[in-house]
Amino acid sequence: MTELRRHYFLDEYCIIAPKRGKRPSDFQMEKAKTGDEAACPFCPGNEEMTPPPDAVYTMQGVLSEGPSRISGWELRVFPNVFAAMVPCPAPASTEWMALPGQGFHEVIVDSPRHRENPADFSQGHMERLIMVYRDRYVHYSENDLVKYVSIFKNWGKEAGASLSHSHSQLVTLPILPPLIKRELDAISRALRCPFCNIVEQEKKSCRLIDENENWILIAPFYSQAPYETWILPKRHFANLGEMHESEGKSLAALLMQALGSLRSVLNDPPYNCMIFQLPFGYHLNIRIQPAISKIAGFERSTGVYINSIAPEYAAAKLSALAEKMI
Amino acid sequence: MTELRRHYFLDEYCIIAPKRGKRPSDFQMEKAKTGDEAACPFCPGNEEMTPPPDAVYTMQGVLSEGPSRISGWELRVFPNVFAAMVPCPAPASTEWMALPGQGFHEVIVDSPRHRENPADFSQGHMERLIMVYRDRYVHYSENDLVKYVSIFKNWGKEAGASLSHSHSQLVTLPILPPLIKRELDAISRALRCPFCNIVEQEKKSCRLIDENENWILIAPFYSQAPYETWILPKRHFANLGEMHESEGKSLAALLMQALGSLRSVLNDPPYNCMIFQLPFGYHLNIRIQPAISKIAGFERSTGVYINSIAPEYAAAKLSALAEKMI
Repeated sequence: MTELRRHYFLDEYCIIAPKRGKRPSDFQMEKAKTGDEAACPFCPGNEEMTPPPDAVYTMQGVLSEGPSRISGWELRVFPNVFAAMVPCPAPASTEWMALPGQGFHEVIVDSPRHRENPADFSQGHMERLIMVYRDRYVHYSENDLVKYVSIFKNWGKEAGASLSHSHSQLVTLPILPPLIKRELDAISRALRCPFCNIVEQEKKSCRLIDENENWILIAPFYSQAPYETWILPKRHFANLGEMHESEGKSLAALLMQALGSLRSVLNDPPYNCMIFQLPFGYHLNIRIQPAISKIAGFERSTGVYINSIAPEYAAAKLSALAEKMI
Repeated sequence: MTELRRHYFLDEYCIIAPKRGKRPSDFQMEKAKTGDEAACPFCPGNEEMTPPPDAVYTMQGVLSEGPSRISGWELRVFPNVFAAMVPCPAPASTEWMALPGQGFHEVIVDSPRHRENPADFSQGHMERLIMVYRDRYVHYSENDLVKYVSIFKNWGKEAGASLSHSHSQLVTLPILPPLIKRELDAISRALRCPFCNIVEQEKKSCRLIDENENWILIAPFYSQAPYETWILPKRHFANLGEMHESEGKSLAALLMQALGSLRSVLNDPPYNCMIFQLPFGYHLNIRIQPAISKIAGFERSTGVYINSIAPEYAAAKLSALAEKMI
């Protein structure tokens, strides 16, 4: 038996179909091989291969607008050469079919070590990365031309990374994206923050993977992807800029837990890690979707996702691992 | 410069970013190898490996509910063993978070020849396939429990096919899927069918790839995927059941053109081919999206698609090919 599930508060649906994971395939493919440090534009020593940085972070903190060739950096932020959005004058018209792609697109090289897996980041390094996400978010959200700041990390070729060296990206948009608009519409009609409801409801459910003082890690009832997880703050706040320092530290701990257990259960899967946040009227959340199944014709033509792993099963597998890791 | 484009009539957006197609990758992967006829459940001689058929089509026509082992078949339809939706009693409640996955999921083996590429189907075979799509659509759309019938074809592993032998699928849903609901909402607010507008507008545009008496083939202004194409009937009708016989024949011809030029330009790319139709109040259309770029963190968290190929460029490439093929 399969199950059609409704999203917590949107008119969106997924189908939980466990048997589909067992279907045979006659396609054989090898795991992707990756290149080495010498040719990697994200590696220390190759800084000249990228544009001058917007910010460079060392163990000691941020060194903004410094010279491009700083050694000993821990994180490095620079404009994406292959940008989806680029700085340019704002258009005057509000009635439009096409606009210049006006905005910013940054690469955040989140480790100086070419082959380091984010699941192996130290607690301190993950805290630093979250602070970089916060800094860059605050920087762009204060820009009048920016309506939305998207921060995400694609890990692995199947998740859309083109380079294997661990990195995140930030893209700004001059519009509210449709997914966020639909969430805001639903939130504005609700009596209470739907994400606060999710925290309250899932804290007591079998979909809770782990929690700490400030955050919960769950396999959401509505899961688009196998082993999808969400991280939500227990306190209602809209974005990383409003996060307390202690919340940043405990977020780093739970994110390490999430990435570590995913890696163990799925043998280092490709994944997309995405931060959902807004200047106000929202409840920050982070979603991690392993890219281990294809978005195919059915999903693309209906918007309904077929997921072969029940979130309750995923939570049991991931939390068993989480217990062992403590 | 990149461009942010709005959908013809929805609050949906894509970003046309040609330079992004040039970004380097350090991932190397081989093309998938595929298995042979002996173990293929879709091959003639292996009919016992699948459930009994719902319909079998020979050169002479349909042989419904016949014995499972018919030789000389051209198309074969049977229930998907790994179904997303399965027949079961309809639920009583209208207020729900989860429902049994009540419905039907069929496999349409669309060629008896293991390695035949759909771009190599004969005109007659493609006409037959379209008639099978029509028959199965009409069959299920008359079922009171069925609110939507999704027919699609995933070609190639990257497009989500698990078996390489050419096949299509049909999945019914007891709900209107969100993508279709949003289209219907917009259609109900419009003064005139937005798809009729698209036909009128794109027939005169540089995004027209080809047309015949009854259909146009375009690279849509709002394209989620590189080399995405849409096929639209010039006459306003809602589904394949309302199609005239001559329209079926000319659809087969234009679909062959679309698949043939895609194969030539992109060297047999994986793709999703999807039929959008409803019992009434809609304008049938078919969309083909090559699966040659990843849906990554940005797309998944915003619903905005970054496309490295401008539809105008795609149309020029595909139509140049189309001219040569005549």
